[in-house]
Amino acid sequence: MLHILYIIAITAEAMTAALSAGRRDMDWVGVCIIAWVTALGGGTVRNILFNHYPMSWVEHPEYLLITAAAALLAAIIASIMTKLKKLFLYLDALGLVVFTIIGCQIAQQINLPASIVLLSGMITGCAGGVLRDVLCNDIPLLFHKEIYASASIVTGAVYLGIEYFGGSEGLAIITACVIGLTLRLLSIRYKWQMPKFVYHDEWH
Amino acid sequence: MLHILYIIAITAEAMTAALSAGRRDMDWVGVCIIAWVTALGGGTVRNILFNHYPMSWVEHPEYLLITAAAALLAAIIASIMTKLKKLFLYLDALGLVVFTIIGCQIAQQINLPASIVLLSGMITGCAGGVLRDVLCNDIPLLFHKEIYASASIVTGAVYLGIEYFGGSEGLAIITACVIGLTLRLLSIRYKWQMPKFVYHDEWH
Amino acid sequence: MLHILYIIAITAEAMTAALSAGRRDMDWVGVCIIAWVTALGGGTVRNILFNHYPMSWVEHPEYLLITAAAALLAAIIASIMTKLKKLFLYLDALGLVVFTIIGCQIAQQINLPASIVLLSGMITGCAGGVLRDVLCNDIPLLFHKEIYASASIVTGAVYLGIEYFGGSEGLAIITACVIGLTLRLLSIRYKWQMPKFVYHDEWH
Repeated sequence: MLHILYIIAITAEAMTAALSAGRRDMDWVGVCIIAWVTALGGGTVRNILFNHYPMSWVEHPEYLLITAAAALLAAIIASIMTKLKKLFLYLDALGLVVFTIIGCQIAQQINLPASIVLLSGMITGCAGGVLRDVLCNDIPLLFHKEIYASASIVTGAVYLGIEYFGGSEGLAIITACVIGLTLRLLSIRYKWQMPKFVYHDEWH
Repeated sequence: MLHILYIIAITAEAMTAALSAGRRDMDWVGVCIIAWVTALGGGTVRNILFNHYPMSWVEHPEYLLITAAAALLAAIIASIMTKLKKLFLYLDALGLVVFTIIGCQIAQQINLPASIVLLSGMITGCAGGVLRDVLCNDIPLLFHKEIYASASIVTGAVYLGIEYFGGSEGLAIITACVIGLTLRLLSIRYKWQMPKFVYHDEWH
Repeated sequence: MLHILYIIAITAEAMTAALSAGRRDMDWVGVCIIAWVTALGGGTVRNILFNHYPMSWVEHPEYLLITAAAALLAAIIASIMTKLKKLFLYLDALGLVVFTIIGCQIAQQINLPASIVLLSGMITGCAGGVLRDVLCNDIPLLFHKEIYASASIVTGAVYLGIEYFGGSEGLAIITACVIGLTLRLLSIRYKWQMPKFVYHDEWH
């Protein structure tokens, strides 16, 4: 079940990443690489930090094929995607919570402490988007837009909390998904943001 | 033989990288670091992704010395290098195919599937330039200029294909080098580019 | 002793990193992530390159808490920090030499050759600031400002040299700290810079 959601999520992430690449006039190679980095980069960064090998896309090279195909499809049907904007925002939110839960599970498997399990979820959910923005030469959206990393942390905390108080894994996954998705979608709908820190003294 | 070409290639990559650093007014430390990252970064990223240690430059610290010396030399003789522009374009193309084949070989040694062997070649050939552009605060050239990553994939595919159909390793290396170099040089000569995906609707 | 200096250094690095984030109008999540990356990123990059696991912040998750708290505190008392500018420049210089020595020690523990021990010190001392600048979409300060990486190399060389000639570890640490700090602070005071390489021919 989580696996199916994961495939849907990486497909959707690859498609929206393709549009980011298109905004920078990239060619098809650039579109594929940005799609790979966005869809698979979060898990890859997590695995590097926690020394967890092999990478998912080495064991399942079909992930590379699926995401590349999705990205090129997105480049072809870009005008249709614009009309389906809302659907892709939902799918991106789904990706965030699914990646987060998978990241938490993997950190649990290698017996990391609870705070690092949460961090692993956040890295898995968010690092792909950060890498995409760095490669597109933007300041990562994550750092100044909406409730994104925070929704990831809440998702991970709900998941861990329910397991801690004896709930089954299934219950934990479903509840965390629902709460995380709701929080993320409400924050898009009502443009919730974290408080900002604006500091413009030239100090250096 | 491949080892000698490798040394020539990292030297040439370090020298052209130094000019990139010079365009950004970097000091000598910056010039060295950009040279290291460009010449040795592709293999380093590959090794991190595939958990293949130690790094070549840890086993052979002289690579660090060679590339740093080449970069500082390039900074000193920059005006001469400008006149040798073509030579350095050829050496950069040589570097691309040599790095690609080495990347494929290392992935074969650790028994990765064929698609990942190709990807390993591409990462080894291209990631150094991407890191250089990120550190110089540019959108990676790779994503929107000429046949570069594609030439790397073709090189790897020819190499793998010849071995698959029973050709010797030597034959595979030489044929892949010749075809990859020809493709890359023709693409520079005739300004071949991959199709671009230009998308300027403000969607986010 | 070195451990206490390390805690002081990551706290100070996190606080000055928070101001960098504030200059880019980041929200609190962004401030925390920039602080983590700046304070803990150097050691993390070193560990990835030398396959040295687990990360310090996985073994000591309290480092994440300390640096996040320090960063949020800095965001709150930014106006006071501006007045303490000099103190934070000193603490940043302290961080540079402490990180450098720790980086050298870890490379010695895993029996790397002397040149790589020096490089490990430089990476530990400097990579956090480079990652901060990449995420803030700047050209890394390291590459064009003042004696920074060079002070790190001198610190490492003094440390290694004293041990090589039979000095105790304690003597090596203290002497390297004093010389490294002095060099860094003099370079700030008198605006010493490394020679620059400026090259503006459009070659590519």
